[in-house]
Amino acid sequence: MDKITYRPARDELAYTFGGRMPVAHLRSGDVLEVVTEDCFGGLVRGPADLPSQVCHMPYLNPVSGPFFVEDAEPGDTLAIHLAAITPARDWGVSSTFPHFGVLTSTSHTATLQPPLEERVWVYGIDRQAGIVRFRATETDHTVDLPLETMIGTIGVAPGGFEARSTIVPDSHGGNLDTPELRAGTTLYLGVNMHGAMLALGDGHARQGEGEACGVGVEIATTTTLAIDVIKGVPTVWPRLETDTSIMSIGCARPLEDAYRIAHHDMVGWVESLTGLEMLDAYQLVSQAGRAPIGNVCDPNYTVLAAVDKALLPSPTAAYDGAHGRLRQLAAGLG
Amino acid sequence: MDKITYRPARDELAYTFGGRMPVAHLRSGDVLEVVTEDCFGGLVRGPADLPSQVCHMPYLNPVSGPFFVEDAEPGDTLAIHLAAITPARDWGVSSTFPHFGVLTSTSHTATLQPPLEERVWVYGIDRQAGIVRFRATETDHTVDLPLETMIGTIGVAPGGFEARSTIVPDSHGGNLDTPELRAGTTLYLGVNMHGAMLALGDGHARQGEGEACGVGVEIATTTTLAIDVIKGVPTVWPRLETDTSIMSIGCARPLEDAYRIAHHDMVGWVESLTGLEMLDAYQLVSQAGRAPIGNVCDPNYTVLAAVDKALLPSPTAAYDGAHGRLRQLAAGLG
Amino acid sequence: MDKITYRPARDELAYTFGGRMPVAHLRSGDVLEVVTEDCFGGLVRGPADLPSQVCHMPYLNPVSGPFFVEDAEPGDTLAIHLAAITPARDWGVSSTFPHFGVLTSTSHTATLQPPLEERVWVYGIDRQAGIVRFRATETDHTVDLPLETMIGTIGVAPGGFEARSTIVPDSHGGNLDTPELRAGTTLYLGVNMHGAMLALGDGHARQGEGEACGVGVEIATTTTLAIDVIKGVPTVWPRLETDTSIMSIGCARPLEDAYRIAHHDMVGWVESLTGLEMLDAYQLVSQAGRAPIGNVCDPNYTVLAAVDKALLPSPTAAYDGAHGRLRQLAAGLG
Amino acid sequence: MDKITYRPARDELAYTFGGRMPVAHLRSGDVLEVVTEDCFGGLVRGPADLPSQVCHMPYLNPVSGPFFVEDAEPGDTLAIHLAAITPARDWGVSSTFPHFGVLTSTSHTATLQPPLEERVWVYGIDRQAGIVRFRATETDHTVDLPLETMIGTIGVAPGGFEARSTIVPDSHGGNLDTPELRAGTTLYLGVNMHGAMLALGDGHARQGEGEACGVGVEIATTTTLAIDVIKGVPTVWPRLETDTSIMSIGCARPLEDAYRIAHHDMVGWVESLTGLEMLDAYQLVSQAGRAPIGNVCDPNYTVLAAVDKALLPSPTAAYDGAHGRLRQLAAGLG
Repeated sequence: MDKITYRPARDELAYTFGGRMPVAHLRSGDVLEVVTEDCFGGLVRGPADLPSQVCHMPYLNPVSGPFFVEDAEPGDTLAIHLAAITPARDWGVSSTFPHFGVLTSTSHTATLQPPLEERVWVYGIDRQAGIVRFRATETDHTVDLPLETMIGTIGVAPGGFEARSTIVPDSHGGNLDTPELRAGTTLYLGVNMHGAMLALGDGHARQGEGEACGVGVEIATTTTLAIDVIKGVPTVWPRLETDTSIMSIGCARPLEDAYRIAHHDMVGWVESLTGLEMLDAYQLVSQAGRAPIGNVCDPNYTVLAAVDKALLPSPTAAYDGAHGRLRQLAAGLG
Repeated sequence: MDKITYRPARDELAYTFGGRMPVAHLRSGDVLEVVTEDCFGGLVRGPADLPSQVCHMPYLNPVSGPFFVEDAEPGDTLAIHLAAITPARDWGVSSTFPHFGVLTSTSHTATLQPPLEERVWVYGIDRQAGIVRFRATETDHTVDLPLETMIGTIGVAPGGFEARSTIVPDSHGGNLDTPELRAGTTLYLGVNMHGAMLALGDGHARQGEGEACGVGVEIATTTTLAIDVIKGVPTVWPRLETDTSIMSIGCARPLEDAYRIAHHDMVGWVESLTGLEMLDAYQLVSQAGRAPIGNVCDPNYTVLAAVDKALLPSPTAAYDGAHGRLRQLAAGLG
Repeated sequence: MDKITYRPARDELAYTFGGRMPVAHLRSGDVLEVVTEDCFGGLVRGPADLPSQVCHMPYLNPVSGPFFVEDAEPGDTLAIHLAAITPARDWGVSSTFPHFGVLTSTSHTATLQPPLEERVWVYGIDRQAGIVRFRATETDHTVDLPLETMIGTIGVAPGGFEARSTIVPDSHGGNLDTPELRAGTTLYLGVNMHGAMLALGDGHARQGEGEACGVGVEIATTTTLAIDVIKGVPTVWPRLETDTSIMSIGCARPLEDAYRIAHHDMVGWVESLTGLEMLDAYQLVSQAGRAPIGNVCDPNYTVLAAVDKALLPSPTAAYDGAHGRLRQLAAGLG
Repeated sequence: MDKITYRPARDELAYTFGGRMPVAHLRSGDVLEVVTEDCFGGLVRGPADLPSQVCHMPYLNPVSGPFFVEDAEPGDTLAIHLAAITPARDWGVSSTFPHFGVLTSTSHTATLQPPLEERVWVYGIDRQAGIVRFRATETDHTVDLPLETMIGTIGVAPGGFEARSTIVPDSHGGNLDTPELRAGTTLYLGVNMHGAMLALGDGHARQGEGEACGVGVEIATTTTLAIDVIKGVPTVWPRLETDTSIMSIGCARPLEDAYRIAHHDMVGWVESLTGLEMLDAYQLVSQAGRAPIGNVCDPNYTVLAAVDKALLPSPTAAYDGAHGRLRQLAAGLG
């Protein structure tokens, strides 16, 4: 077991999952401390730095990695425990972006209307107080929001020789943009190619459910992960586990298909953890489930199906207890 | 101020919003105690009572009402405070229903596959313990879920001479099917015709977010409401207020349009309560908002946009403090 | 057999399907000549008549009717042959309308953008030449388009005690807005209540597939119909028949559900007309079918599934030959 | 100007657009004769060859190429004229495929229902007679359908370092699955990387609009193309031109977004070809346009916006007359 640290040089940042050579090698049981840039590559620092002017496609949403996980093969699952996500600076930024976000027409929900005004918001971050400070741009209102740091983008190489933009969330993970990807959560991703090729970035000091304007409170981070390979256990869609709940993630358009994917996966997961028959599991999930929305702005939308472990009848441990093991492993290194 | 009680005779139950004569008259400041039947009209009482056999269209999802509110005119808002929702029996039922629910093809998401098996689940309800007991049908698993009583269907007559099935949620309310419609919540609905024509039913002992299988834990209830008419203040989409948060409700397909409607409404509401400029309000909602899903099974899906009042910069009271007034009014009568 | 003529007085126009008393009675075999107003009630006559100013909700999209069909009962099908659709004037109008149409945000696909400019286009109609003349408003371009007169809105009362705005297309017909509703076509609608309650209006001199801007070339018409009741034969979704093809109509959002409904219905129809097994019918429709889009702007979108009769293996006559009979009947009266 | 011929060895087939080395080099003005395999790689030849058994992911939907086009740079447009598409064999196949197609639940429109039965249909192809013969599997029905050969999948490398499965249609082309990609049509694709990297495959003897069951009448082909690079003219979404019409292609979910993309692009195209102002162009497209559906089964759905050139007021030639030039070039080599 090793603790590996990695800070990408600017030209090492990746803009796809898949199609890249690894930047470092990891093994099951390793802990990784990795520096991640914000979704703008750190180029948006104030109101004058309009994203559409200072950023250039496809150099958006950089991730650190990919990391080659030595024992990961197709058909395995990679378990990634998020041990800590620390903002790298005492500020974060958000913005509107032309024809991006849910309350604007977009490149795909295309209309003849001009875009909303592009504007930048700079948030102050007070790590001690656990606060993100919103400052209005047109009036002098301010308000303190809870600091709820999360990783927006994390994934492995997709299968089928594909390389996907880091803007896209899908079954390989990617730009999932859910507040549930916070410290204390374990993420399970199916491995699609030898080495898995894990990468991550796009930290948020916080975001609302759906990330309505298309941009969270974007931050660079130092993120600490503990990883494990669960051999011979496939995972089709990303799954999460915390001390108290399990969650399945669906990514699709329209939004109801993201909901369907997540809940279809959750019904099967509950069946396998509890021994409930399929329709019994469907019934239980229907009454006990939560369905937090991740994003409604990215190329695929994200919905989660969540069930509290306390509401499952005598469940076995998911992935043979990987969450607990990794949590302890990370705690030992803290 | 009066306390009115109403228990519908079987042939008084209504199956539309609009197109009905009132069953009673109310005034601003009145408290109403009303008995509501469950969505099956009480006809599903055990595993042998398959809904598609014992119920007959359109006699599904009955509501009690409509109630004529004497001072309500188009352009006003009707505020309805849910003071108490008490299960009428010590059991509730749920079911699958042929081609209804989110993890099945339906009449509209039509496929050539046969329907899932139709099956009934009977839940025990322990009001003292605050528990709803799930019992599996194919194995002997049981699990206790929290009793979180709610009203599934509540609304006023739609405008434009329309009469809409009680299965439908839309801007007039109706089958909103959100767990947020619990005791302690105030619902604001725009008035579309003289008298508003309030009606409600379809109680749930609880439901998961999205009501995945299409049916909650269905119960008859005794529900206590306090009502107020806010004169000259229109409301376009249903809104909710609790002691701690405000919520806008969107109803549409696809699901992202329900999200858009709710968030568009919330941005405007935040603007008007705080004085924030539009894009500042959009930004704040994007970072501070929650987006609980109501249903993903009814003719329109339901998504809410929610913001905690504590995260709004110096807001004025919504609807001139109607929530607080009605809460006190109902408490006084309790 | 009678020929009935009907010209509505202004205050006889209807704005819902359902919830109205009949304006006249018809019987199987009757021919009806009916005057219909345009979707603006004739109030938009030039560039200065902006629809959002001269029209007032819900007084949009008036229909003539309803007509009580004496022998029509729930479970029957009403066959309506469109014998002739004649423009009542030598001009038609189109417009943009705030937040309505497919290339704009709308009340449901809600965004924070201002609406597109509202503007009116007046088209010249030359019935002899069969031409509709487009004139640009900002330049001096003109172009002659083929006159392809159609009825936008035609339907019966919906079931379940509902009354639906004439803006809405659904299983009862209504605002179907498909160019296939032209002279020579027979429409089949399921009867939901005694008398069927047929009504129609919203003629178009032509429209593109999808009616992108939300408004066709709107005209008042004199329309001639021949009707028949097919006893004991239910029809779930609207169907069309011409001399050469059969078509099923689906109405829903998102647009793929309209496609699914129409094709699901068509597979069943092909099965019943040819004796093909279900998957064989699915296969044949998949290779032989056309799928003309009706509207992508109304509360439900409309897609048709169409198959040429010549591509069906030895089909029996649909609805026992109603199309042919009504066509001859109407020809005899011409 | 050269005529290049290319027949891929089995291990040269490609399964992505992007991420591949070129198999040959072309220049503006070259004519290419290329052999393409069917979507099953030729492995499905009879009723016993169930696709899910004889094919293995990701080895589905192979394309021939990519071809490096020597003078193509990002910001240019590649014009590809389809001169001839000849079936390579006297049979084609179609099938159902588990959880794929529009009248079944799928991996994304996920339900708990079992899949439809997987089945293979073998069609006879008579090139002389221009006929594709459907034979039912469960009865002895047969019917002759017109042979309307088309290319299902054609595209260039996507931008942003991506590599996309050949199953996917998007702005780079790919699995567009529209019957409009027939001989006589010119396809315009934006170039995203040096050399464009053109590839194609997935011929169909015919398909219905929407490709409802998810599979056309799949054939291997010999396809003849003439290509041209239009320097300095970008193209955002694929466009088509025939002797009589122009078409824009949108690829997205839900289906209405594909419609929006195509019509947004067409409005801009009409503006630039005619000098009409934007809303005038929107109005004309709304009344004159056709909207043929391509596919409603692939990861993105495909809708086209089509306008007949004869209905445009004095248009200039699209892409400086590339369609006419390539048509003549191909004719000269015929």
